[in-house]
Amino acid sequence: MKYVLLLSYDGTDFCGWQNQPQKRTVQGVMEQAAEEIFHEKVKITASGRTDAGVHARGQVAEFDAETNIPAKKLAACFDRLLPSDVKVRASAPAPEGFDCTRGAKRKTYVYSAYFAPCELPLSRRYAARLPQRPDVGRMREAARLLLGEHDFAAFRSSGFTSKTSIRTLYDAEIAEQTESDRIRYEISLTGNGFLYNMARIIAGELFAVGCGKEEGISRAFQGGARSALAKTMPPEGLCLERVEYSSPLF
Amino acid sequence: MKYVLLLSYDGTDFCGWQNQPQKRTVQGVMEQAAEEIFHEKVKITASGRTDAGVHARGQVAEFDAETNIPAKKLAACFDRLLPSDVKVRASAPAPEGFDCTRGAKRKTYVYSAYFAPCELPLSRRYAARLPQRPDVGRMREAARLLLGEHDFAAFRSSGFTSKTSIRTLYDAEIAEQTESDRIRYEISLTGNGFLYNMARIIAGELFAVGCGKEEGISRAFQGGARSALAKTMPPEGLCLERVEYSSPLF
Repeated sequence: MKYVLLLSYDGTDFCGWQNQPQKRTVQGVMEQAAEEIFHEKVKITASGRTDAGVHARGQVAEFDAETNIPAKKLAACFDRLLPSDVKVRASAPAPEGFDCTRGAKRKTYVYSAYFAPCELPLSRRYAARLPQRPDVGRMREAARLLLGEHDFAAFRSSGFTSKTSIRTLYDAEIAEQTESDRIRYEISLTGNGFLYNMARIIAGELFAVGCGKEEGISRAFQGGARSALAKTMPPEGLCLERVEYSSPLF
Repeated sequence: MKYVLLLSYDGTDFCGWQNQPQKRTVQGVMEQAAEEIFHEKVKITASGRTDAGVHARGQVAEFDAETNIPAKKLAACFDRLLPSDVKVRASAPAPEGFDCTRGAKRKTYVYSAYFAPCELPLSRRYAARLPQRPDVGRMREAARLLLGEHDFAAFRSSGFTSKTSIRTLYDAEIAEQTESDRIRYEISLTGNGFLYNMARIIAGELFAVGCGKEEGISRAFQGGARSALAKTMPPEGLCLERVEYSSPLF
């Protein structure tokens, strides 16, 4: 029987999602808990890998197991065994023919950053610091160029390869909020899929444009040159907010 | 010459503000940095001690030192030496006759908590989890009883003693915000001073009243019985937001 899980994790102390020998990964910690629950080795697959340091509020994962535990109660079984930096928010039986990786229709990533005169201890784990205050109007103009179906080949770091680099971005919103000790920025990106480092490269380009860089998105779409775009943002600002399928899972 | 500092720290990995042998404290880490900067032992005093695990966004501290470094540049000198969980947001010369402890006119503490079906990894460091969803209307009604000058003797944990337990609370506001994975609550308290654990005891009582407990504030003010009030909230939800003096320091 196949089950689905809704996961949340603080990526700070994980070497990403995927199993790696001798490293603490989310998949590794989850599979260890599963082995305790089901008394056998269980492979847990996510909608996509997240990098070292990247967080998730709504990652979706699946696994096969034989058990008498009701599907809804599995979340609590996992949570009793899991460390405080990864928790299962919900569990359910998987729909017929479900595939959490290929079946994902829309993913939403949120990139958080802040501008302040010095590094802020209470912001450092979940947001990146910006060297200057960006112009949100310029960022929004550049973000509009990203919407729709494009070849995002230039918005990818080497290392992982996908068959195609064509992706569709449905939404790219930028929020700015003034708080007591900082100005906070959130870039929300919703698309049908993201290439390796794509969300962090988009965030880097948008913040750079906001800080005065000439927009490189049009050139990147034409020639595919990574060099037209600004630097990749660091992982701590990125969070996988939500993964959507053809019907609600939980 | 006396200087003042505006400090921010993530209290999670500190055993509070005050120096203790063999323990990592904010004061200890700050005085270590000061010794490197001024080449002599320097005592750094805060507006008040914060407990183990309690955070600060705007703690104020002072010290005496002889140096040629311009006062405004001291913040950056500290920040180069400090670990990422404590930073100096601003530095300035202290006004004539300044005393950061006795001179504090108003302090603002914010207590953050959330309600969600399970513990949330991305909330666990800076907010406490509530066992049920509180009624904010009931909380606001109870909070009104706290305003003004009262004997807060019942709102204090044993361990530290102040000469008087009379304090004035100027403001007690409660905010509720629905987010994607939780409902977030913030209790902001501004007063002329706070007894040991007072902010966390007030937060505990207000959340308990929101969850159905009978209000114990009136009785606590009359008889001084700690037992009329609910349990002290845990430290991770508390943050010293701001300390105000008779004139702005920075």
